Amino acid sequence: MKLVEIKYVDKKPKLKNPVFIEGLPGIGNVGKLAVEHLIDSMKAKKFAELYSKDFPPQVFINPDGTIKLVNNEFFYWKAKKRSQRDIVFLTGDYQGLSSQGQYELAESILDVVQGLGVKQMFTLGGYGLGREIKEPKVLFATTDVNLVKTMKKYGAVFKKNEPGGGIIGASGLLLGLGKLRGMVGTCFMGETPGYLVDPKSAKAVLKVLTKAVNVEIDLSRLEEKAKEIEYIAQQLNEMETMVKEKPDDIRYIG
Amino acid sequence: MKLVEIKYVDKKPKLKNPVFIEGLPGIGNVGKLAVEHLIDSMKAKKFAELYSKDFPPQVFINPDGTIKLVNNEFFYWKAKKRSQRDIVFLTGDYQGLSSQGQYELAESILDVVQGLGVKQMFTLGGYGLGREIKEPKVLFATTDVNLVKTMKKYGAVFKKNEPGGGIIGASGLLLGLGKLRGMVGTCFMGETPGYLVDPKSAKAVLKVLTKAVNVEIDLSRLEEKAKEIEYIAQQLNEMETMVKEKPDDIRYIG
Amino acid sequence: MKLVEIKYVDKKPKLKNPVFIEGLPGIGNVGKLAVEHLIDSMKAKKFAELYSKDFPPQVFINPDGTIKLVNNEFFYWKAKKRSQRDIVFLTGDYQGLSSQGQYELAESILDVVQGLGVKQMFTLGGYGLGREIKEPKVLFATTDVNLVKTMKKYGAVFKKNEPGGGIIGASGLLLGLGKLRGMVGTCFMGETPGYLVDPKSAKAVLKVLTKAVNVEIDLSRLEEKAKEIEYIAQQLNEMETMVKEKPDDIRYIG
Amino acid sequence: MKLVEIKYVDKKPKLKNPVFIEGLPGIGNVGKLAVEHLIDSMKAKKFAELYSKDFPPQVFINPDGTIKLVNNEFFYWKAKKRSQRDIVFLTGDYQGLSSQGQYELAESILDVVQGLGVKQMFTLGGYGLGREIKEPKVLFATTDVNLVKTMKKYGAVFKKNEPGGGIIGASGLLLGLGKLRGMVGTCFMGETPGYLVDPKSAKAVLKVLTKAVNVEIDLSRLEEKAKEIEYIAQQLNEMETMVKEKPDDIRYIG
Repeated sequence: MKLVEIKYVDKKPKLKNPVFIEGLPGIGNVGKLAVEHLIDSMKAKKFAELYSKDFPPQVFINPDGTIKLVNNEFFYWKAKKRSQRDIVFLTGDYQGLSSQGQYELAESILDVVQGLGVKQMFTLGGYGLGREIKEPKVLFATTDVNLVKTMKKYGAVFKKNEPGGGIIGASGLLLGLGKLRGMVGTCFMGETPGYLVDPKSAKAVLKVLTKAVNVEIDLSRLEEKAKEIEYIAQQLNEMETMVKEKPDDIRYIG
Repeated sequence: MKLVEIKYVDKKPKLKNPVFIEGLPGIGNVGKLAVEHLIDSMKAKKFAELYSKDFPPQVFINPDGTIKLVNNEFFYWKAKKRSQRDIVFLTGDYQGLSSQGQYELAESILDVVQGLGVKQMFTLGGYGLGREIKEPKVLFATTDVNLVKTMKKYGAVFKKNEPGGGIIGASGLLLGLGKLRGMVGTCFMGETPGYLVDPKSAKAVLKVLTKAVNVEIDLSRLEEKAKEIEYIAQQLNEMETMVKEKPDDIRYIG
Repeated sequence: MKLVEIKYVDKKPKLKNPVFIEGLPGIGNVGKLAVEHLIDSMKAKKFAELYSKDFPPQVFINPDGTIKLVNNEFFYWKAKKRSQRDIVFLTGDYQGLSSQGQYELAESILDVVQGLGVKQMFTLGGYGLGREIKEPKVLFATTDVNLVKTMKKYGAVFKKNEPGGGIIGASGLLLGLGKLRGMVGTCFMGETPGYLVDPKSAKAVLKVLTKAVNVEIDLSRLEEKAKEIEYIAQQLNEMETMVKEKPDDIRYIG
Repeated sequence: MKLVEIKYVDKKPKLKNPVFIEGLPGIGNVGKLAVEHLIDSMKAKKFAELYSKDFPPQVFINPDGTIKLVNNEFFYWKAKKRSQRDIVFLTGDYQGLSSQGQYELAESILDVVQGLGVKQMFTLGGYGLGREIKEPKVLFATTDVNLVKTMKKYGAVFKKNEPGGGIIGASGLLLGLGKLRGMVGTCFMGETPGYLVDPKSAKAVLKVLTKAVNVEIDLSRLEEKAKEIEYIAQQLNEMETMVKEKPDDIRYIG
C-alpha cells in the first residue's frame, strides 16, 4: 500500500472546466459541515475514495453493524444551468496525522482533481477566535491578487494580519501547492468560537461560497443544527457559571 | 530490513479454506489472552514469525536466560471434523507503534493469510468501559451486513453507536483493509473495565468465537486466571477506599 | 513531491568563488534577523525557493490577501570590489520539523550551494543564556582549526565548553555535513536572553560577519528594532514585578 | 544521504575471527563508559565513523574550537597473545532517536561487523534500579542457552525475570537481530541507580567482560571517576535532606 491510495468506486466522471471544493475536519468542523451540506443538498455523486496510512488505524461502525475504514471521499456534480460550472467535492473523516502526510495527501488530491480538469478551487475551514460570536464573518485568502476584489463582492472579508498564523492544514496546503502548479484558489474561513462543531459558521461560509459558484441551496437544516448547538453551548455556560459562583465549594473537590 | 519481515520457521502449511483469527495486545489484553488460550488448548503449530521496525527496539529475556526479539507469530491448526475448518492464528508481543506502521503490518499480515487461502477472518479485542462489569457482553462489527444475524445467533451483541470511536488498531484495520481486498470478517469485542488484563472478558469472547468456528475448548484455565485478577482488583479497590477515608493523612505524604 | 523541492524563480546565477551565509529561525531569531538585514541592505536577489514536506503544512497570508506556502529562500549578491567575494544567502520561515528532515534539508541546501561553487560558509544563530545581557558577545565554532585565529581577529569569542550542548539545527548541521564534503565553515552565535527576537544580538553577529566577508552595511535599522524590543522587554519585566509584589491578589485570578 | 552512512577513516582492518563489543549511551552510561575505557586502555584504532539521520541534528564543539558532527565510531584491536582474539569496538554519542532508526542502525552495524568476520558479540549496558547499590552485580542475557553456564563462570549473574522489561535499545537489538543472522552474543548489564553516569557499574561490567575476552586492563581510572561521582551523589543527597527537613520554608518558594 502506498501512503495514499485512490479507489474509484464509479467511473471517472467527464467534467467541463470543473471547480473543486474541499471541506475536511478542522476547527469547529466548519469546512466539513459546509461541504457535506452541499453534497447532500445538491445530490452530488461519490466517485472515489481516498485511503491513507497517514490516517489513524481505525474503522468506524455503521448503524447497520458494518465497518468503514476511515477515508476521504470525492463527489461530483454536473452543472444544471449555463451560468454554473461542474463541481468536484472532497470531504472525509480525517486530515493527515503528520506534516509529511499532509503534504502527500494534498499532492494526491491535486493529482486527482487536475486529472479531472480542475484549475480553480475553494477550500473551506474555520477561524477559531476562542470567544462567542454573534454573526460570524467569513475571512478569505487567495492565490491571486486579482481575486481579492471578487471575493469581497461575494461578502467575504479581508482583515490584515488575520488569521495571524496563516492557514494550517489541508485548506492552506491545497492552495499553496496548487499555486505552485499554476492553479488558482481561495480559502473561505468562517469565524467560530472553536469549542464545538459550528453549523452557524458553516452556514455563513456557504452563503459566500454559493454566490461564488452560483448555486442555490436550502440552508435551513444548518440553521436547525446551529440552534441545537447554541442550546448545548448555553447549557455548558450555565454549568460553568454555577461552578464559578460557588468557589468555596470547589476547594473541597481537590 | 524491510518495515515488516516474515520469517518462516516451518514450511508454509497447506490449508483448506482456512479461517483467520487474530488477537494482539490491546485494551484488557482481551484479544491476545483469547487467541493464546486457543493456540495452547488446540495445540496449534507455529509456522512463521513476523518482525517489524515498527515494534519497539526490544528483546525479552526468557526464563532460561536467552533473549527473544519482540515479534508477532503465526500458528495453524488443521480441522479434526468435517464440520470444522482449518484455522490460522496470529498473536504477538506488540502492535505497530505508529499509524503508518499499523497499516503496513496489517497489509503484510493479510498478504500472508491470503497466501494460505484465507477469505474469512475473526479479529478479537476488548471494549473498555472504564467501570466494573458483572457479565461482560461481546459486541461485534462486521464487513458484511449479511453476517450480522449470524453473529447475533452466536451470542454476540450489537449496540448502535458502540464503540462510539469505532475500532482502533489491528483488529479494526485487518477488517477494513481486508474488506477492500474482498475478504469478509468480524470483530468480537469483549466488554472490559480496561484497567487490568481481563481473562473474564477473554472467556466471554471465546464462548462466542468457538460457536462461530465450531470448536470445543476447555475454558477453566481462563476462569482461574479471572479469579486471580478479580482478587487483585479487589485488593486495589480496598487500598483505594482506605486512602479515600483518611483524606487528612494524605496531606502528610506529599 | 520529494521531501525537499528546489524551485528556481530566476536563472541559476554564475558566481566566482562565492561564500555562503545561512540564517534560519532559531533562538532569539538571531540568524534570520541578521541574514534578512543583509539581504535587504545589500539588495541581494532571490533566485530559488525551497519547499519541504518537513515544514509545517501551512501558508502565510500576505498583506494583499494572497497566500505564501512556507519555504526557505536563496539569494545571491555579486561582489562590488576586488576585495569582496560573491555571496549566496539562505533564510526562510522554518527549519525542518524532524531530525531526519533537518539532515535531508541540510544535504539539499549543500547540494545547491556546492553547485554554485561554494567552498566556504558562515552559519548564524543565537546562543541562549536565559538572562539579560548588556553587550552580547559573538561565540564561534569552525570546521578547521586554522580558522580559529582568524575568527578571533574579527571579534568573535571562543569560550571553552560553550555552548555546552554544541550547535543544534541547521547552523550546526550545515557545518558538520559540509565538513564531510570537504567544505570549510564557521558558525557565529550571538549571545541572547532567548526570550524574544533579538535584533541587538543580530547586530553583534553582523559586526563580526561583515568584517569576515568585507562588506559595509548600515546597522541603524537593527538598532531601532533593538530599542523597540528593549522597551517591550522592560514592560514585561515591570508587569512581572507588579505581579510578584502582590502575591495575595493573584489568588483571585485563578 | 541514506539513513545510515559508514565512512571509513582508515582502511578496513583484516581480522581473525574477531569478537564485537558494543557500548553506546544508555542508563548510567554504563556501556559507553566501559567500551571507552577499553578503547583507551588497549589503544584500539578507529577505522570507521557512522553517521545517521536518526541521530539529533547536532554538532559538538571540541576544546580547540572545531566542530564534530555527532556519530558512532568503530575501533579495532589485534590480539597480542594466542589466547586472545581480535576485537571490534563500537561506541558513540547517541543511539537512534526513533524505533525504526534503532532497527536500521543495528542492521547497519551488523553489516559492518559481519563484513569483518564477526560471529560473536558482547553488548554492554546498565540495568537501572532507581536506588543506591553497594556492589553492583552484572546481569546477563544471551542468544544461546549453552552460553549461560559460561557467563556465570565469568561472574555474571542471572536473575529470573530481570530486567522485567527485557533489554531496550541497541544492546538488545544487536543481539536479537544478530541471532536472526545466526550470530551468538551476550549482553552484560551492570546494576546502576541510573541517576548519574556510573563508572562503578562500568568497572563491574569490565571485570566480567575482560574474563570473557581474556584481556587484562587497568581499572584504576574508572575507580577514580567512581569516587568523584560518589562525592557528587553524596552532595546531592545532603542537599535533598536539607530541603526535606525544612518543609515549611518550601511553601514560600512556590
